[in-house]
Amino acid sequence: MNVFIVGVGLIGGSMAKDIKVNNPNAVIYGIDTNEKHIEEALSIKLIDKKASYDDLSIADIVIISVPVDVMVFELPKVLDVVNDDAVVLDAGSTKALICNAVASHPKRRNFLACHPIAGTEFSGPSAAINDLFRGKTNIICEVEKTAFKLQERALTVFQKLGMRIRYMNPEAHDKHIAYVSHLSHISSFMLGKTVIEKEKNERDIFDMAGSGFESTVRLAKSSPAMWTPIFKQNKANVVETLDEYIQNLKAFKQMLLEDDFEGIYNEMNSTNRIKEILNGIPLNKK
Amino acid sequence: MNVFIVGVGLIGGSMAKDIKVNNPNAVIYGIDTNEKHIEEALSIKLIDKKASYDDLSIADIVIISVPVDVMVFELPKVLDVVNDDAVVLDAGSTKALICNAVASHPKRRNFLACHPIAGTEFSGPSAAINDLFRGKTNIICEVEKTAFKLQERALTVFQKLGMRIRYMNPEAHDKHIAYVSHLSHISSFMLGKTVIEKEKNERDIFDMAGSGFESTVRLAKSSPAMWTPIFKQNKANVVETLDEYIQNLKAFKQMLLEDDFEGIYNEMNSTNRIKEILNGIPLNKK
Repeated sequence: MNVFIVGVGLIGGSMAKDIKVNNPNAVIYGIDTNEKHIEEALSIKLIDKKASYDDLSIADIVIISVPVDVMVFELPKVLDVVNDDAVVLDAGSTKALICNAVASHPKRRNFLACHPIAGTEFSGPSAAINDLFRGKTNIICEVEKTAFKLQERALTVFQKLGMRIRYMNPEAHDKHIAYVSHLSHISSFMLGKTVIEKEKNERDIFDMAGSGFESTVRLAKSSPAMWTPIFKQNKANVVETLDEYIQNLKAFKQMLLEDDFEGIYNEMNSTNRIKEILNGIPLNKK
Repeated sequence: MNVFIVGVGLIGGSMAKDIKVNNPNAVIYGIDTNEKHIEEALSIKLIDKKASYDDLSIADIVIISVPVDVMVFELPKVLDVVNDDAVVLDAGSTKALICNAVASHPKRRNFLACHPIAGTEFSGPSAAINDLFRGKTNIICEVEKTAFKLQERALTVFQKLGMRIRYMNPEAHDKHIAYVSHLSHISSFMLGKTVIEKEKNERDIFDMAGSGFESTVRLAKSSPAMWTPIFKQNKANVVETLDEYIQNLKAFKQMLLEDDFEGIYNEMNSTNRIKEILNGIPLNKK
């Protein structure tokens, strides 16, 4: 089995690692515009061979894990050159524009639109880890547009990675993921910014920060190169979530100013329900 | 050594556990208005005996770990009845009003104002764990107002718990802790609220939430009974941090609306510095 990883970073690299464990005979080819990443991936044996688009005709599976703004240009090019029996998967955090980019591509049936919801705040080949996807959710969009036997091949891979599958349309995916993922990143980045700005002259202050701050601000370590295009592609949904978040913060501040501490108690008490909700989230934290 | 824990929950209970390990001959007395907590603490051997304020005259060390609004009333009463050689410690997340409450107390020299910056999002006696404080920071305020030999006794306890000590004045503590702790809790509670409100009719959506959301929203599991009085006592500082946070979120939204994605990239890129800052934070996560 010839597996091509286009974009050898955290996501593509972690998939490569598990696929190699599950299929010892698989040959993993890496394609990346970043020559250092290719060298690094070869040296840590994340990939077996360096490759280019010219080699894609021998691919059985192609996993494209590049920033979503690059994805909309590269995905059609990959489809152009793969053979009729190859399945091409993406791993983008947005789905509408990506699905749209290949909606009328002659090889649309070779593509399966995926969003494996997994990751860490780290990036690059050295961030790749085994079992990143075990117990995690993989959202598949427009499954009916993919050739049946290619769906099957992809689902076998995902099953061995330990993922559970959910099917959605691209618009619903982008709307809901804005709440449960994109907004978290913005809230975390802005929290980091607020504290760094205030305390820039008082580095000692971070001695006061406990694991609560660390947890809340963890996503502010994420890659701007990955996240800027996500916010761009999902702008309308992200702005909506951000509006609601800002309104809630303003209402909380207003209660503070009015000494409405009963209201503040009730607000926090009803949000405590997040405990039961989170118990349903499969976690696989490192 | 007679150790009294007033408020047998996560913090007091965790201290009791470690003190018992470090001093096997210590007798741990528990005082709590919640009879169920006392029974639970006895049954899991967190405390050796149930006690009342009448027993405090035999105390060598008293650790008061109750919500900060209760603290300002109970701390003076505890000082009223301890003997001249007892050291009384608090564990409050605010310091100015607590220090103020005993500023002119005749036994002020028996009190050491502390904020051990440690915890989890859980509460109650069953949440108590060993080694919660190892590697964590303990802020001590107005150390000069405590009798020298009582400072020494307290520091020996903290040293055995594995804490590092920082000295600050109460006002500086309250100002900076608003940034590195109180604001994180509000950002997390409001994130939880925003997502729950939006998705209340679509519980399946939480299948889409990954570990990033879980991490960012973790503090929204915290106890409203503990946090409402903290926000009340530190209102001025908390409102200031919240104002700056809301301004930063609005500026981010504005950049989105104006398609200023270079600005968004730069914003996230400069906040990535939080990585190095966080590397300085001692973590002891469960």
